[in-house]
Amino acid sequence: MPSFSDRLALAIAEKKTPVLVGLDPRWAQLPCVFTQGVSEPTGFDVAEAYAQFCRAVIDIVAPLVPAVKPQAAFFEQFGPDAMRALHGVIRYAQNQGLLVILDGKRNDIGSTAAAYAAGLLGRGTSPWSADALTVSPYLGDDSLEPFIETANKREAGVFILVKTSNPGGKLFQDLIADGKPVYQHVAEWVESAARASLSPRSANPYASLGAVVGATWPKQLAEMRQTLKSCWLLVPGYGSQGGAAKDVAGAFDQRGMGAVINNSRGILFAYKKPEYARFGEKDWEGAVEAATRDMIDALAAETTAGRLR
Amino acid sequence: MPSFSDRLALAIAEKKTPVLVGLDPRWAQLPCVFTQGVSEPTGFDVAEAYAQFCRAVIDIVAPLVPAVKPQAAFFEQFGPDAMRALHGVIRYAQNQGLLVILDGKRNDIGSTAAAYAAGLLGRGTSPWSADALTVSPYLGDDSLEPFIETANKREAGVFILVKTSNPGGKLFQDLIADGKPVYQHVAEWVESAARASLSPRSANPYASLGAVVGATWPKQLAEMRQTLKSCWLLVPGYGSQGGAAKDVAGAFDQRGMGAVINNSRGILFAYKKPEYARFGEKDWEGAVEAATRDMIDALAAETTAGRLR
Repeated sequence: MPSFSDRLALAIAEKKTPVLVGLDPRWAQLPCVFTQGVSEPTGFDVAEAYAQFCRAVIDIVAPLVPAVKPQAAFFEQFGPDAMRALHGVIRYAQNQGLLVILDGKRNDIGSTAAAYAAGLLGRGTSPWSADALTVSPYLGDDSLEPFIETANKREAGVFILVKTSNPGGKLFQDLIADGKPVYQHVAEWVESAARASLSPRSANPYASLGAVVGATWPKQLAEMRQTLKSCWLLVPGYGSQGGAAKDVAGAFDQRGMGAVINNSRGILFAYKKPEYARFGEKDWEGAVEAATRDMIDALAAETTAGRLR
Repeated sequence: MPSFSDRLALAIAEKKTPVLVGLDPRWAQLPCVFTQGVSEPTGFDVAEAYAQFCRAVIDIVAPLVPAVKPQAAFFEQFGPDAMRALHGVIRYAQNQGLLVILDGKRNDIGSTAAAYAAGLLGRGTSPWSADALTVSPYLGDDSLEPFIETANKREAGVFILVKTSNPGGKLFQDLIADGKPVYQHVAEWVESAARASLSPRSANPYASLGAVVGATWPKQLAEMRQTLKSCWLLVPGYGSQGGAAKDVAGAFDQRGMGAVINNSRGILFAYKKPEYARFGEKDWEGAVEAATRDMIDALAAETTAGRLR
């Protein structure tokens, strides 16, 4: 199997867009077809509804986008049955031709980090089968290395949190140490590790080690594109969190490569937004497709992602 | 139900020790009675073995210690069946009279953090039913507050990573910003949030919001006891990671309260250590009990935890 980075580049080129659809099922926002008749849902009810909803979303977006990003929290929230549903959703998405970036923000000390990496990372070679995983950096280099090693062995990817999209992200990430913010220290470590794992023979300038940088900080995003020369950027915060197409322009290189832009609620629950009210709850699927196509078009119009076409 | 902090204080007083037993099952180290006849274990095989092993450990330690700390990674490593085993282990431990601190080091942006908190925190009031959870601080205040709010509503506890026990923890945690290390900034935020959630009527000086500070940094541990006046300290790194009883003395207050000291491998797999070789693999349970009692005695001899007796 080619490396995660090569597979991601190929999928973006084929679909001609860097849109990443976040699979964040939320019970209270599901179209009523998935929740009707269930007043006090058990974990099993929720698991069934999330599995069906996510499969339906995957069917719509699989021809349009390169990858999906299931959010582990929304499944873990409802216990073991819902974790099993997550497991099925990952495989279903892969069978429909999508890459799967699992958003778990996991980490721990070295030998425990190795257990997360072994369990989560690797399509068909790990129990959870993710193509890539998000990882938190607070525990430092010896907590990050086991993920990178396992990813390299299994042609999987890792995205390390650098500058997160939430307002509170700045509290510790923006503290200035040695003249630069903490997130810059993290970014420099990530870039150095990415460069070390790049194959010198590859035409692909990006490693399978990437970084999470929020769309809500456009200036820092463009700076991070410079610092993280060898890294894919996973950019959350588009749509419901306030980021727009022009805000993420700085994430891309001149070819329109180098970044994937995530949208979760803005696509999954588009039927609730005024722009897509014409579809109504009955045609929530039409709203998902329209919102996905609109985001693809907006990125093509406002960023170098338009050059993919 | 009393607050997590009150329940923890009571359990420590009853058992007369602050020893926390980490439930870190590792397939390759399990006594052979749990693995015999299984050459290539499936997730189901591992889940069954982990459930049986952890229940056996719980039966031994329940009369001796106040709490256990299951490590989510070792269960997640083997997929959904093993996650179901974790779910059962938490309940089994609670039924045997133990508090359960789930070591997940979870976190995400606010609304997603709320999903983790809703799912994991709260004995009998959440799907996973943990009495407390470890949480990572990199995403900042608006990612931490949902855990604290849910914990306060459900009489649960939260332990935020401040200074972790692994050598690499220093890479980002020890960066100096505004004249003090990043972990000190995190500690001051945690202390401030803990003080705000303390009940003024309570005789208990500790909130249900605590901090993780490693036994491997004795000097910083004593400093953190001063900074985190209103917080329980969860201290990993004792035993296999190199921390000894005298190294954790600074974690306690004058009454022997204020901290729980974790030991995972040093207790679970004591039968593999030279000191307990006399038990052999057949009496691995005897080794677990001896190692637990030895740790209780060492803390009583070398720290103010002796005053609990």
